[in-house]
Amino acid sequence: MISVVILGAGNVATHLFKAFNTANNVSVNQWFNRNISSIFQYKNEVDITDDLSLLKDADVYIIAVSDDAIAELSKQLTFKNKLVVHTSGSVGIYDIDKKQKRGVFYPLQTFSKDAEMDFKNVPICIETIDKKDYHILKELAISIGSPTKKVNSDQRRVLHLAAVFVNNFTNQLYRIGHEITESEGAEFDLLKPLILETANKIQELSPYMAQTGPAKRHDKKTIKKHLKSLENDHHRAIYELLTLSIQQTHGRKKL
Amino acid sequence: MISVVILGAGNVATHLFKAFNTANNVSVNQWFNRNISSIFQYKNEVDITDDLSLLKDADVYIIAVSDDAIAELSKQLTFKNKLVVHTSGSVGIYDIDKKQKRGVFYPLQTFSKDAEMDFKNVPICIETIDKKDYHILKELAISIGSPTKKVNSDQRRVLHLAAVFVNNFTNQLYRIGHEITESEGAEFDLLKPLILETANKIQELSPYMAQTGPAKRHDKKTIKKHLKSLENDHHRAIYELLTLSIQQTHGRKKL
Ligand SMILES: NC(=O)c1ccc[n+]([C@@H]2O[C@H](COP(=O)([O-])OP(=O)(O)OC[C@H]3O[C@@H](n4cnc5c(N)ncnc54)[C@H](OP(=O)(O)O)[C@@H]3O)[C@@H](O)[C@H]2O)c1
Ligand SMILES: NC(=O)c1ccc[n+]([C@@H]2O[C@H](COP(=O)([O-])OP(=O)(O)OC[C@H]3O[C@@H](n4cnc5c(N)ncnc54)[C@H](OP(=O)(O)O)[C@@H]3O)[C@@H](O)[C@H]2O)c1
Repeated sequence: MISVVILGAGNVATHLFKAFNTANNVSVNQWFNRNISSIFQYKNEVDITDDLSLLKDADVYIIAVSDDAIAELSKQLTFKNKLVVHTSGSVGIYDIDKKQKRGVFYPLQTFSKDAEMDFKNVPICIETIDKKDYHILKELAISIGSPTKKVNSDQRRVLHLAAVFVNNFTNQLYRIGHEITESEGAEFDLLKPLILETANKIQELSPYMAQTGPAKRHDKKTIKKHLKSLENDHHRAIYELLTLSIQQTHGRKKL
Repeated sequence: MISVVILGAGNVATHLFKAFNTANNVSVNQWFNRNISSIFQYKNEVDITDDLSLLKDADVYIIAVSDDAIAELSKQLTFKNKLVVHTSGSVGIYDIDKKQKRGVFYPLQTFSKDAEMDFKNVPICIETIDKKDYHILKELAISIGSPTKKVNSDQRRVLHLAAVFVNNFTNQLYRIGHEITESEGAEFDLLKPLILETANKIQELSPYMAQTGPAKRHDKKTIKKHLKSLENDHHRAIYELLTLSIQQTHGRKKL
Protein backbone atom coordinates (compact mmCIF):
# COMPACT_ATOMS: atom_id res chain seq x y z
CA MET A 1 0.00 0.00 0.00
CA ILE A 2 1.37 3.38 -1.02
CA SER A 3 -0.05 6.45 0.70
CA VAL A 4 -0.24 9.80 -1.09
CA VAL A 5 -1.22 13.39 -0.42
CA ILE A 6 -2.37 15.39 -3.45
CA LEU A 7 -1.76 19.14 -3.65
CA GLY A 8 -3.73 21.18 -6.16
CA ALA A 9 -7.22 20.77 -7.59
CA GLY A 10 -6.84 21.36 -11.31
CA ASN A 11 -7.21 18.97 -14.23
CA VAL A 12 -4.30 16.72 -13.35
CA ALA A 13 -4.89 16.66 -9.59
CA THR A 14 -8.55 15.78 -10.05
CA HIS A 15 -7.87 12.93 -12.49
CA LEU A 16 -5.10 11.60 -10.30
CA PHE A 17 -7.34 11.71 -7.24
CA LYS A 18 -10.04 9.71 -9.00
CA ALA A 19 -7.56 7.14 -10.27
CA PHE A 20 -5.74 6.73 -6.96
CA ASN A 21 -8.97 6.64 -5.02
CA THR A 22 -10.21 3.61 -6.95
CA ALA A 23 -6.81 1.84 -7.11
CA ASN A 24 -6.41 -1.17 -4.85
CA ASN A 25 -3.05 -0.48 -3.31
CA VAL A 26 -3.07 3.29 -3.03
CA SER A 27 -4.48 5.26 -0.15
CA VAL A 28 -5.11 8.97 -0.60
CA ASN A 29 -4.44 10.26 2.90
CA GLN A 30 -5.37 13.83 2.13
CA TRP A 31 -6.16 16.35 -0.60
CA PHE A 32 -4.92 19.92 -0.25
CA ASN A 33 -5.94 23.00 -2.23
CA ARG A 34 -5.45 26.66 -1.36
CA ASN A 35 -9.12 27.11 -2.24
CA ILE A 36 -11.00 24.47 -0.35
CA SER A 37 -14.16 25.16 -2.32
CA SER A 38 -12.79 23.35 -5.40
CA ILE A 39 -12.45 20.08 -3.49
CA PHE A 40 -15.32 20.46 -1.07
CA GLN A 41 -17.51 18.08 -3.04
CA TYR A 42 -15.02 15.26 -2.28
CA LYS A 43 -15.09 15.74 1.50
CA ASN A 44 -16.87 12.42 2.10
CA GLU A 45 -14.36 10.48 0.04
CA VAL A 46 -11.12 11.91 1.36
CA ASP A 47 -9.75 14.17 4.07
CA ILE A 48 -9.54 17.66 2.57
CA THR A 49 -7.64 20.72 3.74
CA ASP A 50 -6.49 24.19 2.74
CA ASP A 51 -3.93 24.43 5.53
CA LEU A 52 -0.38 23.33 4.71
CA SER A 53 0.52 23.10 8.39
CA LEU A 54 -2.06 20.34 8.80
CA LEU A 55 -0.70 18.04 6.09
CA LYS A 56 -0.75 14.38 7.06
CA ASP A 57 2.04 11.89 6.72
CA ALA A 58 2.32 9.98 3.43
CA ASP A 59 4.81 8.09 1.25
CA VAL A 60 4.45 10.51 -1.66
CA TYR A 61 3.36 14.15 -1.90
CA ILE A 62 2.15 15.03 -5.39
CA ILE A 63 2.25 18.71 -6.27
CA ALA A 64 -0.10 19.14 -9.24
CA VAL A 65 -0.37 22.93 -9.33
CA SER A 66 0.44 25.48 -12.04
CA ASP A 67 4.06 25.32 -13.18
CA ASP A 68 4.89 28.72 -11.73
CA ALA A 69 3.60 27.79 -8.28
CA ILE A 70 5.48 24.51 -7.82
CA ALA A 71 8.74 25.88 -6.37
CA GLU A 72 6.98 28.21 -3.96
CA LEU A 73 4.51 25.61 -2.73
CA SER A 74 7.26 23.05 -2.16
CA LYS A 75 9.15 25.63 -0.11
CA GLN A 76 6.14 26.11 2.14
CA LEU A 77 5.96 22.45 3.14
CA THR A 78 6.76 22.26 6.84
CA PHE A 79 8.14 18.70 7.00
CA LYS A 80 11.38 17.52 5.41
CA ASN A 81 13.03 14.53 3.76
CA LYS A 82 9.80 13.20 2.28
CA LEU A 83 9.29 12.18 -1.34
CA VAL A 84 7.78 15.24 -3.03
CA VAL A 85 7.07 15.15 -6.77
CA HIS A 86 5.56 17.49 -9.30
CA THR A 87 3.63 16.53 -12.45
CA SER A 88 5.05 19.03 -14.93
CA GLY A 89 6.76 18.35 -18.24
CA SER A 90 8.76 21.54 -18.19
CA VAL A 91 9.65 22.38 -14.59
CA GLY A 92 13.05 21.20 -13.34
CA ILE A 93 13.30 18.49 -10.70
CA TYR A 94 15.52 20.84 -8.68
CA ASP A 95 12.72 23.42 -8.48
CA ILE A 96 11.35 21.31 -5.66
CA ASP A 97 12.74 22.49 -2.35
CA LYS A 98 15.98 20.73 -1.53
CA LYS A 99 14.93 19.78 1.99
CA GLN A 100 12.79 17.05 0.39
CA LYS A 101 13.49 13.90 -1.60
CA ARG A 102 12.63 15.11 -5.09
CA GLY A 103 10.98 13.51 -8.07
CA VAL A 104 8.80 14.05 -11.13
CA PHE A 105 5.65 12.12 -12.01
CA TYR A 106 4.82 13.56 -15.44
CA PRO A 107 1.67 12.23 -17.11
CA LEU A 108 2.20 12.58 -20.87
CA GLN A 109 -1.40 13.27 -21.82
CA THR A 110 -3.86 16.10 -22.23
CA PHE A 111 -6.42 16.36 -19.45
CA SER A 112 -9.68 18.25 -19.25
CA LYS A 113 -11.69 18.23 -16.08
CA ASP A 114 -14.91 16.85 -17.54
CA ALA A 115 -13.52 14.30 -20.02
CA GLU A 116 -12.99 10.84 -18.55
CA MET A 117 -9.43 9.53 -18.69
CA ASP A 118 -8.33 5.91 -18.63
CA PHE A 119 -4.85 5.92 -17.14
CA LYS A 120 -3.79 2.98 -19.28
CA ASN A 121 -3.58 5.67 -21.99
CA VAL A 122 -1.42 7.93 -19.83
CA PRO A 123 2.30 7.12 -19.95
CA ILE A 124 3.91 8.34 -16.74
CA CYS A 125 7.43 9.71 -17.20
CA ILE A 126 9.32 9.27 -13.98
CA GLU A 127 12.40 11.10 -12.83
CA THR A 128 14.00 10.82 -9.41
CA ILE A 129 17.33 11.60 -7.85
CA ASP A 130 17.37 8.49 -5.67
CA LYS A 131 16.77 5.09 -7.30
CA LYS A 132 14.66 3.90 -4.35
CA ASP A 133 12.19 6.68 -4.98
CA TYR A 134 11.93 5.66 -8.62
CA HIS A 135 10.56 2.27 -7.63
CA ILE A 136 7.86 3.75 -5.42
CA LEU A 137 6.72 6.07 -8.22
CA LYS A 138 6.77 3.26 -10.73
CA GLU A 139 4.61 1.13 -8.45
CA LEU A 140 2.26 4.07 -7.98
CA ALA A 141 1.87 4.47 -11.76
CA ILE A 142 1.36 0.75 -12.28
CA SER A 143 -1.34 0.72 -9.61
CA ILE A 144 -3.49 3.00 -11.77
CA GLY A 145 -2.73 1.00 -14.92
CA SER A 146 -0.32 3.45 -16.53
CA PRO A 147 2.68 2.47 -18.60
CA THR A 148 5.82 4.03 -17.14
CA LYS A 149 9.10 5.30 -18.50
CA LYS A 150 12.22 6.41 -16.69
CA VAL A 151 13.35 9.68 -18.23
CA ASN A 152 16.06 12.18 -17.47
CA SER A 153 15.52 15.95 -17.46
CA ASP A 154 16.57 16.40 -21.10
CA GLN A 155 14.27 13.64 -22.26
CA ARG A 156 11.36 15.03 -20.28
CA ARG A 157 12.03 18.46 -21.75
CA VAL A 158 11.94 17.17 -25.35
CA LEU A 159 8.89 15.02 -24.68
CA HIS A 160 7.07 18.08 -23.43
CA LEU A 161 8.24 20.08 -26.43
CA ALA A 162 7.20 17.30 -28.83
CA ALA A 163 3.84 17.18 -27.05
CA VAL A 164 3.30 20.81 -28.01
CA PHE A 165 3.83 19.86 -31.65
CA VAL A 166 1.63 16.75 -31.72
CA ASN A 167 -1.07 18.14 -29.42
CA ASN A 168 -1.35 21.96 -29.47
CA PHE A 169 -0.06 22.51 -33.00
CA THR A 170 -1.97 19.57 -34.44
CA ASN A 171 -5.11 20.89 -32.81
CA GLN A 172 -4.47 24.25 -34.47
CA LEU A 173 -4.27 22.49 -37.84
CA TYR A 174 -7.69 21.00 -37.05
CA ARG A 175 -8.83 24.52 -36.28
CA ILE A 176 -7.57 25.78 -39.64
CA GLY A 177 -9.34 22.86 -41.32
CA HIS A 178 -12.45 24.04 -39.52
CA GLU A 179 -12.02 27.63 -40.74
CA ILE A 180 -11.31 26.61 -44.33
CA THR A 181 -14.30 24.31 -44.64
CA GLU A 182 -16.74 26.68 -42.95
CA SER A 183 -15.65 29.46 -45.30
CA GLU A 184 -17.42 27.57 -48.11
CA GLY A 185 -20.24 26.18 -46.01
CA ALA A 186 -18.68 22.71 -46.12
CA GLU A 187 -18.92 20.56 -43.01
CA PHE A 188 -15.89 20.18 -40.77
CA ASP A 189 -17.51 17.01 -39.45
CA LEU A 190 -16.69 15.28 -42.72
CA LEU A 191 -13.00 15.53 -41.77
CA LYS A 192 -13.34 13.80 -38.43
CA PRO A 193 -12.89 10.21 -39.65
CA LEU A 194 -9.78 11.34 -41.56
CA ILE A 195 -8.41 13.00 -38.44
CA LEU A 196 -8.88 9.79 -36.47
CA GLU A 197 -7.36 7.65 -39.20
CA THR A 198 -4.33 9.96 -39.40
CA ALA A 199 -3.71 9.45 -35.68
CA ASN A 200 -4.46 5.74 -35.89
CA LYS A 201 -2.11 5.15 -38.79
CA ILE A 202 1.03 6.11 -36.89
CA GLN A 203 0.21 3.75 -34.04
CA GLU A 204 1.68 1.09 -36.35
CA LEU A 205 3.54 2.98 -39.06
CA SER A 206 6.23 5.63 -38.55
CA PRO A 207 5.12 9.16 -39.51
CA TYR A 208 7.75 8.96 -42.23
CA MET A 209 6.13 5.90 -43.80
CA ALA A 210 2.61 7.21 -43.28
CA GLN A 211 3.13 10.43 -45.25
CA THR A 212 1.19 10.98 -48.50
CA GLY A 213 -0.15 13.96 -50.45
CA PRO A 214 0.93 16.73 -52.81
CA ALA A 215 3.91 17.95 -50.78
CA LYS A 216 5.49 14.51 -50.58
CA ARG A 217 4.75 13.89 -54.27
CA HIS A 218 6.25 17.30 -55.13
CA ASP A 219 3.02 17.88 -57.04
CA LYS A 220 3.65 21.50 -57.97
CA LYS A 221 0.37 21.99 -59.80
CA THR A 222 -1.80 21.06 -56.82
CA ILE A 223 0.40 22.99 -54.38
CA LYS A 224 0.11 26.11 -56.52
CA LYS A 225 -3.65 25.71 -56.78
CA HIS A 226 -3.94 25.30 -53.02
CA LEU A 227 -1.79 28.34 -52.29
CA LYS A 228 -3.85 30.40 -54.67
CA SER A 229 -7.12 29.43 -53.05
CA LEU A 230 -5.93 30.18 -49.49
CA GLU A 231 -7.20 33.65 -48.71
CA ASN A 232 -5.83 33.93 -45.19
CA ASP A 233 -2.15 34.98 -45.17
CA HIS A 234 -1.47 32.95 -42.06
CA HIS A 235 -2.96 29.82 -43.52
CA ARG A 236 -0.88 30.32 -46.63
CA ALA A 237 2.32 30.79 -44.64
CA ILE A 238 1.61 27.60 -42.70
CA TYR A 239 0.84 25.73 -45.92
CA GLU A 240 4.15 26.88 -47.43
CA LEU A 241 6.25 26.11 -44.38
CA LEU A 242 4.82 22.66 -43.74
CA THR A 243 5.01 21.76 -47.42
CA LEU A 244 8.69 22.72 -47.37
CA SER A 245 9.18 20.72 -44.18
CA ILE A 246 7.63 17.61 -45.74
CA GLN A 247 9.80 18.05 -48.82
CA GLN A 248 12.92 18.36 -46.69
CA THR A 249 11.97 15.17 -44.89
CA HIS A 250 11.18 13.26 -48.06
CA GLY A 251 13.77 14.66 -50.46
CA ARG A 252 13.18 15.54 -54.04
CA LYS A 253 11.73 12.90 -56.30
CA LYS A 254 14.37 11.53 -58.62
CA LEU A 255 13.10 12.02 -62.17
CA MET B 1 -28.73 -3.78 -57.81
CA ILE B 2 -26.22 -1.22 -59.10
CA SER B 3 -23.60 -2.42 -61.54
CA VAL B 4 -20.18 -0.79 -61.69
CA VAL B 5 -16.97 -0.97 -63.67
CA ILE B 6 -13.81 0.12 -61.84
CA LEU B 7 -10.92 1.73 -63.72
CA GLY B 8 -7.51 1.90 -62.07
CA ALA B 9 -5.79 -0.40 -59.59
CA GLY B 10 -4.28 1.92 -56.99
CA ASN B 11 -5.16 2.43 -53.33
CA VAL B 12 -8.63 3.78 -53.88
CA ALA B 13 -9.62 1.42 -56.70
CA THR B 14 -8.52 -1.62 -54.70
CA HIS B 15 -10.40 -0.61 -51.55
CA LEU B 16 -13.50 0.25 -53.56
CA PHE B 17 -13.34 -3.09 -55.36
CA LYS B 18 -13.19 -5.00 -52.08
CA ALA B 19 -16.04 -3.02 -50.59
CA PHE B 20 -18.30 -3.26 -53.66
CA ASN B 21 -17.49 -6.92 -54.13
CA THR B 22 -18.81 -7.79 -50.68
CA ALA B 23 -21.78 -5.40 -50.77
CA ASN B 24 -25.19 -6.99 -51.26
CA ASN B 25 -26.67 -4.77 -53.92
CA VAL B 26 -23.63 -3.93 -56.00
CA SER B 27 -22.27 -5.99 -58.83
CA VAL B 28 -18.76 -5.29 -60.08
CA ASN B 29 -19.13 -6.12 -63.77
CA GLN B 30 -15.50 -5.53 -64.63
CA TRP B 31 -12.18 -4.16 -63.42
CA PHE B 32 -9.91 -2.34 -65.84
CA ASN B 33 -6.27 -1.38 -65.43
CA ARG B 34 -3.75 -0.41 -68.10
CA ASN B 35 -1.37 -2.88 -66.42
CA ILE B 36 -3.31 -6.09 -66.05
CA SER B 37 -0.64 -7.54 -63.77
CA SER B 38 -1.79 -5.39 -60.83
CA ILE B 39 -5.27 -6.93 -60.85
CA PHE B 40 -4.40 -10.39 -62.10
CA GLN B 41 -4.73 -11.85 -58.60
CA TYR B 42 -8.45 -10.97 -58.63
CA LYS B 43 -9.23 -12.76 -61.89
CA ASN B 44 -11.34 -15.43 -60.19
CA GLU B 45 -13.45 -12.84 -58.37
CA VAL B 46 -14.18 -10.44 -61.19
CA ASP B 47 -13.81 -10.03 -64.93
CA ILE B 48 -10.54 -8.17 -65.51
CA THR B 49 -9.27 -6.37 -68.60
CA ASP B 50 -6.60 -3.99 -69.87
CA ASP B 51 -8.49 -3.18 -73.07
CA LEU B 52 -10.77 -0.14 -73.01
CA SER B 53 -12.56 -1.29 -76.16
CA LEU B 54 -13.79 -4.37 -74.30
CA LEU B 55 -15.45 -2.50 -71.40
CA LYS B 56 -18.77 -4.03 -70.37
CA ASP B 57 -22.00 -2.21 -69.78
CA ALA B 58 -22.65 -0.86 -66.24
CA ASP B 59 -24.66 1.75 -64.37
CA VAL B 60 -21.55 3.54 -63.09
CA TYR B 61 -17.96 3.76 -64.34
CA ILE B 62 -15.56 4.72 -61.57
CA ILE B 63 -12.28 6.23 -62.71
CA ALA B 64 -9.89 5.88 -59.76
CA VAL B 65 -6.59 6.71 -61.45
CA SER B 66 -3.99 9.41 -60.79
CA ASP B 67 -5.44 12.93 -60.97
CA ASP B 68 -3.46 13.79 -64.08
CA ALA B 69 -4.75 10.78 -66.00
CA ILE B 70 -8.48 11.22 -65.35
CA ALA B 71 -9.33 13.56 -68.26
CA GLU B 72 -7.36 11.56 -70.79
CA LEU B 73 -8.76 8.20 -69.69
CA SER B 74 -12.33 9.50 -69.77
CA LYS B 75 -11.73 10.74 -73.32
CA GLN B 76 -10.65 7.26 -74.40
CA LEU B 77 -13.93 5.64 -73.37
CA THR B 78 -15.65 4.41 -76.53
CA PHE B 79 -19.28 4.51 -75.32
CA LYS B 80 -21.25 7.64 -74.51
CA ASN B 81 -23.97 9.03 -72.25
CA LYS B 82 -23.08 6.73 -69.35
CA LEU B 83 -22.54 7.84 -65.73
CA VAL B 84 -18.76 8.25 -65.39
CA VAL B 85 -17.30 9.50 -62.10
CA HIS B 86 -13.84 10.13 -60.72
CA THR B 87 -12.73 9.85 -57.09
CA SER B 88 -10.52 12.91 -56.77
CA GLY B 89 -10.82 15.79 -54.32
CA SER B 90 -9.11 18.27 -56.58
CA VAL B 91 -9.99 17.44 -60.19
CA GLY B 92 -12.94 19.30 -61.71
CA ILE B 93 -16.14 17.48 -62.59
CA TYR B 94 -15.87 18.94 -66.11
CA ASP B 95 -12.53 17.24 -66.62
CA ILE B 96 -14.54 14.13 -67.41
CA ASP B 97 -15.27 13.96 -71.12
CA LYS B 98 -18.50 15.74 -71.97
CA LYS B 99 -19.92 12.89 -74.01
CA GLN B 100 -20.66 11.18 -70.66
CA LYS B 101 -22.95 11.91 -67.72
CA ARG B 102 -20.45 13.24 -65.24
CA GLY B 103 -20.02 12.92 -61.49
CA VAL B 104 -17.59 12.79 -58.60
CA PHE B 105 -17.45 10.10 -55.91
CA TYR B 106 -14.77 11.49 -53.59
CA PRO B 107 -13.89 9.36 -50.55
CA LEU B 108 -12.63 11.75 -47.86
CA GLN B 109 -10.12 9.42 -46.27
CA THR B 110 -6.50 8.36 -46.55
CA PHE B 111 -6.01 4.93 -48.09
CA SER B 112 -3.01 2.66 -48.13
CA LYS B 113 -3.12 -0.57 -50.05
CA ASP B 114 -2.30 -2.89 -47.15
CA ALA B 115 -4.25 -1.20 -44.33
CA GLU B 116 -7.84 -2.42 -43.98
CA MET B 117 -10.50 0.25 -44.37
CA ASP B 118 -14.02 0.14 -42.99
CA PHE B 119 -16.11 2.29 -45.31
CA LYS B 120 -18.34 3.42 -42.48
CA ASN B 121 -15.34 5.66 -41.68
CA VAL B 122 -15.16 6.99 -45.23
CA PRO B 123 -17.50 9.91 -45.95
CA ILE B 124 -18.26 9.97 -49.66
CA CYS B 125 -18.61 13.48 -51.10
CA ILE B 126 -20.89 13.32 -54.10
CA GLU B 127 -21.15 15.80 -56.93
CA THR B 128 -23.23 15.36 -60.08
CA ILE B 129 -24.61 17.55 -62.79
CA ASP B 130 -27.90 15.67 -63.03
CA LYS B 131 -29.93 15.07 -59.85
CA LYS B 132 -30.88 11.54 -60.94
CA ASP B 133 -27.23 10.57 -61.01
CA TYR B 134 -26.80 11.87 -57.49
CA HIS B 135 -29.28 9.34 -56.17
CA ILE B 136 -27.52 6.41 -57.82
CA LEU B 137 -24.17 7.48 -56.34
CA LYS B 138 -25.72 8.01 -52.93
CA GLU B 139 -27.22 4.52 -53.02
CA LEU B 140 -23.85 3.15 -54.08
CA ALA B 141 -22.13 4.79 -51.11
CA ILE B 142 -24.80 3.62 -48.69
CA SER B 143 -24.45 0.06 -49.96
CA ILE B 144 -20.87 -0.02 -48.64
CA GLY B 145 -21.87 1.62 -45.36
CA SER B 146 -20.43 5.06 -46.04
CA PRO B 147 -21.95 8.32 -44.86
CA THR B 148 -22.57 10.61 -47.83
CA LYS B 149 -22.62 14.30 -48.43
CA LYS B 150 -23.71 16.30 -51.44
CA VAL B 151 -21.04 18.88 -52.16
CA ASN B 152 -20.47 21.42 -54.89
CA SER B 153 -17.10 21.99 -56.57
CA ASP B 154 -16.03 24.76 -54.20
CA GLN B 155 -16.89 22.70 -51.16
CA ARG B 156 -15.03 19.68 -52.51
CA ARG B 157 -12.03 21.89 -53.22
CA VAL B 158 -11.88 23.24 -49.65
CA LEU B 159 -12.49 19.81 -48.15
CA HIS B 160 -9.51 18.51 -50.09
CA LEU B 161 -7.43 21.49 -49.01
CA ALA B 162 -8.49 21.08 -45.38
CA ALA B 163 -7.62 17.39 -45.67
CA VAL B 164 -4.05 18.38 -46.51
CA PHE B 165 -3.91 20.36 -43.26
CA VAL B 166 -5.44 17.74 -40.97
CA ASN B 167 -3.79 14.75 -42.63
CA ASN B 168 -0.49 15.57 -44.40
CA PHE B 169 0.51 18.52 -42.23
CA THR B 170 -0.58 16.88 -39.00
CA ASN B 171 1.43 13.83 -39.96
CA GLN B 172 4.46 16.08 -40.50
CA LEU B 173 4.00 17.43 -36.96
CA TYR B 174 4.09 13.80 -35.77
CA ARG B 175 7.29 13.44 -37.78
CA ILE B 176 8.82 16.47 -36.08
CA GLY B 177 7.76 15.05 -32.72
CA HIS B 178 9.59 11.90 -33.75
CA GLU B 179 12.75 13.83 -34.68
CA ILE B 180 12.75 15.91 -31.51
CA THR B 181 12.30 12.98 -29.15
CA GLU B 182 14.85 10.75 -30.88
CA SER B 183 17.40 13.57 -30.73
CA GLU B 184 17.57 13.00 -26.97
CA GLY B 185 17.03 9.24 -27.05
CA ALA B 186 13.49 9.66 -25.75
CA GLU B 187 10.81 7.34 -27.12
CA PHE B 188 8.38 8.65 -29.72
CA ASP B 189 6.07 5.80 -28.70
CA LEU B 190 5.32 7.64 -25.46
CA LEU B 191 3.53 10.29 -27.53
CA LYS B 192 1.17 7.89 -29.27
CA PRO B 193 -1.60 7.92 -26.65
CA LEU B 194 -1.49 11.73 -26.65
CA ILE B 195 -1.74 11.78 -30.45
CA LEU B 196 -4.82 9.54 -30.31
CA GLU B 197 -6.42 11.57 -27.54
CA THR B 198 -5.84 14.80 -29.49
CA ALA B 199 -7.73 13.34 -32.44
CA ASN B 200 -10.40 11.83 -30.20
CA LYS B 201 -11.02 15.05 -28.33
CA ILE B 202 -12.29 16.96 -31.36
CA GLN B 203 -14.79 14.24 -32.24
CA GLU B 204 -16.92 15.89 -29.53
CA LEU B 205 -15.34 19.27 -28.87
CA SER B 206 -14.56 21.97 -31.46
CA PRO B 207 -10.81 22.45 -32.07
CA TYR B 208 -11.32 25.92 -30.62
CA MET B 209 -12.59 24.54 -27.33
CA ALA B 210 -10.05 21.72 -27.25
CA GLN B 211 -6.99 23.98 -27.43
CA THR B 212 -4.59 24.15 -24.43
CA GLY B 213 -0.89 24.78 -23.91
CA PRO B 214 1.67 27.59 -23.70
CA ALA B 215 0.65 29.38 -26.93
CA LYS B 216 -3.00 29.68 -25.90
CA ARG B 217 -1.99 30.70 -22.36
CA HIS B 218 0.41 33.30 -23.85
CA ASP B 219 3.00 31.74 -21.56
CA LYS B 220 6.03 33.69 -22.80
CA LYS B 221 8.53 32.00 -20.50
CA THR B 222 7.79 28.49 -21.75
CA ILE B 223 7.59 29.61 -25.39
CA LYS B 224 10.99 31.26 -25.11
CA LYS B 225 12.49 28.17 -23.48
CA HIS B 226 11.05 25.96 -26.22
CA LEU B 227 12.35 28.19 -29.01
CA LYS B 228 15.78 28.23 -27.44
CA SER B 229 15.93 24.47 -27.21
CA LEU B 230 14.88 23.89 -30.83
CA GLU B 231 18.09 23.40 -32.77
CA ASN B 232 16.55 22.85 -36.19
CA ASP B 233 15.72 26.16 -37.92
CA HIS B 234 12.73 24.64 -39.64
CA HIS B 235 11.28 23.30 -36.44
CA ARG B 236 11.76 26.70 -34.84
CA ALA B 237 10.02 28.48 -37.71
CA ILE B 238 7.08 26.07 -37.47
CA TYR B 239 6.93 26.54 -33.70
CA GLU B 240 6.84 30.31 -34.12
CA LEU B 241 4.26 30.34 -36.87
CA LEU B 242 1.85 27.91 -35.22
CA THR B 243 2.20 29.66 -31.87
CA LEU B 244 1.29 32.92 -33.58
CA SER B 245 -1.61 31.22 -35.32
CA ILE B 246 -2.98 29.88 -32.02
CA GLN B 247 -2.62 33.32 -30.45
CA GLN B 248 -4.49 34.92 -33.32
CA THR B 249 -7.27 32.39 -32.91
CA HIS B 250 -7.48 32.81 -29.15
CA GLY B 251 -6.76 36.50 -28.74
CA ARG B 252 -4.62 38.02 -26.10
CA LYS B 253 -5.37 37.21 -22.50
CA LYS B 254 -6.97 40.16 -20.80
CA LEU B 255 -4.87 41.06 -17.77
N1 LIG C 1 -3.49 19.80 -18.05
C1 LIG C 1 -2.71 18.91 -18.62
O1 LIG C 1 -3.12 18.34 -19.65
C2 LIG C 1 -1.37 18.55 -18.04
C3 LIG C 1 -0.71 17.42 -18.55
C4 LIG C 1 0.51 17.04 -18.00
C5 LIG C 1 1.07 17.78 -16.95
N2 LIG C 1 0.43 18.89 -16.48
C6 LIG C 1 1.06 19.62 -15.37
O2 LIG C 1 0.30 19.39 -14.19
C7 LIG C 1 0.34 20.56 -13.33
C8 LIG C 1 -1.08 21.03 -13.05
O3 LIG C 1 -1.69 21.33 -14.29
P1 LIG C 1 -3.29 21.46 -14.42
O4 LIG C 1 -3.59 21.49 -15.87
O5 LIG C 1 -3.92 20.42 -13.56
O6 LIG C 1 -3.50 22.92 -13.81
P2 LIG C 1 -4.88 23.71 -13.61
O7 LIG C 1 -6.03 22.88 -14.03
O8 LIG C 1 -4.66 25.03 -14.23
O9 LIG C 1 -4.95 23.87 -12.02
C9 LIG C 1 -3.95 24.58 -11.35
C10 LIG C 1 -4.02 24.28 -9.87
O10 LIG C 1 -2.89 24.92 -9.27
C11 LIG C 1 -3.34 25.66 -8.15
N3 LIG C 1 -2.47 26.83 -7.95
C12 LIG C 1 -2.17 27.78 -8.87
N4 LIG C 1 -1.35 28.69 -8.31
C13 LIG C 1 -1.14 28.30 -7.01
C14 LIG C 1 -0.37 28.82 -5.94
N5 LIG C 1 0.35 29.94 -6.08
N6 LIG C 1 -0.40 28.13 -4.78
C15 LIG C 1 -1.10 27.01 -4.65
N7 LIG C 1 -1.84 26.45 -5.62
C16 LIG C 1 -1.86 27.10 -6.80
C17 LIG C 1 -4.76 26.08 -8.49
O11 LIG C 1 -5.43 26.35 -7.29
P3 LIG C 1 -6.89 27.03 -7.29
O12 LIG C 1 -7.85 25.87 -7.53
O13 LIG C 1 -6.96 27.55 -5.91
O14 LIG C 1 -6.88 28.08 -8.35
C18 LIG C 1 -5.26 24.83 -9.19
O15 LIG C 1 -5.74 23.88 -8.28
C19 LIG C 1 1.20 21.58 -14.07
O16 LIG C 1 2.53 21.45 -13.62
C20 LIG C 1 1.12 21.13 -15.52
O17 LIG C 1 2.27 21.50 -16.26
C21 LIG C 1 -0.78 19.29 -17.00
N1 LIG D 1 -4.96 7.59 -51.86
C1 LIG D 1 -5.86 8.26 -51.21
O1 LIG D 1 -5.81 8.28 -49.98
C2 LIG D 1 -6.98 8.99 -51.95
C3 LIG D 1 -8.05 9.49 -51.18
C4 LIG D 1 -9.11 10.12 -51.83
C5 LIG D 1 -9.08 10.27 -53.23
N2 LIG D 1 -8.02 9.81 -53.95
C6 LIG D 1 -8.07 9.98 -55.40
O2 LIG D 1 -8.28 8.70 -56.00
C7 LIG D 1 -7.60 8.63 -57.27
C8 LIG D 1 -6.65 7.45 -57.27
O3 LIG D 1 -5.72 7.63 -56.24
P1 LIG D 1 -4.85 6.42 -55.68
O4 LIG D 1 -4.20 6.86 -54.42
O5 LIG D 1 -5.66 5.17 -55.65
O6 LIG D 1 -3.74 6.32 -56.83
P2 LIG D 1 -2.51 5.31 -56.93
O7 LIG D 1 -2.53 4.33 -55.79
O8 LIG D 1 -1.31 6.13 -57.14
O9 LIG D 1 -2.85 4.52 -58.27
C9 LIG D 1 -2.94 5.20 -59.48
C10 LIG D 1 -3.63 4.33 -60.50
O10 LIG D 1 -3.80 5.14 -61.68
C11 LIG D 1 -3.35 4.41 -62.79
N3 LIG D 1 -2.86 5.34 -63.81
C12 LIG D 1 -1.90 6.30 -63.66
N4 LIG D 1 -1.70 6.96 -64.82
C13 LIG D 1 -2.54 6.39 -65.72
C14 LIG D 1 -2.80 6.62 -67.09
N5 LIG D 1 -2.16 7.59 -67.77
N6 LIG D 1 -3.75 5.86 -67.69
C15 LIG D 1 -4.40 4.90 -67.02
N7 LIG D 1 -4.21 4.63 -65.71
C16 LIG D 1 -3.27 5.36 -65.09
C17 LIG D 1 -2.25 3.53 -62.26
O11 LIG D 1 -2.10 2.45 -63.15
P3 LIG D 1 -0.87 1.40 -63.03
O12 LIG D 1 -1.29 0.43 -61.95
O13 LIG D 1 -0.83 0.82 -64.37
O14 LIG D 1 0.35 2.25 -62.68
C18 LIG D 1 -2.84 3.10 -60.91
O15 LIG D 1 -3.71 2.02 -61.06
C19 LIG D 1 -6.92 9.98 -57.46
O16 LIG D 1 -7.78 10.81 -58.20
C20 LIG D 1 -6.80 10.51 -56.04
O17 LIG D 1 -6.78 11.93 -55.99
C21 LIG D 1 -6.98 9.18 -53.34
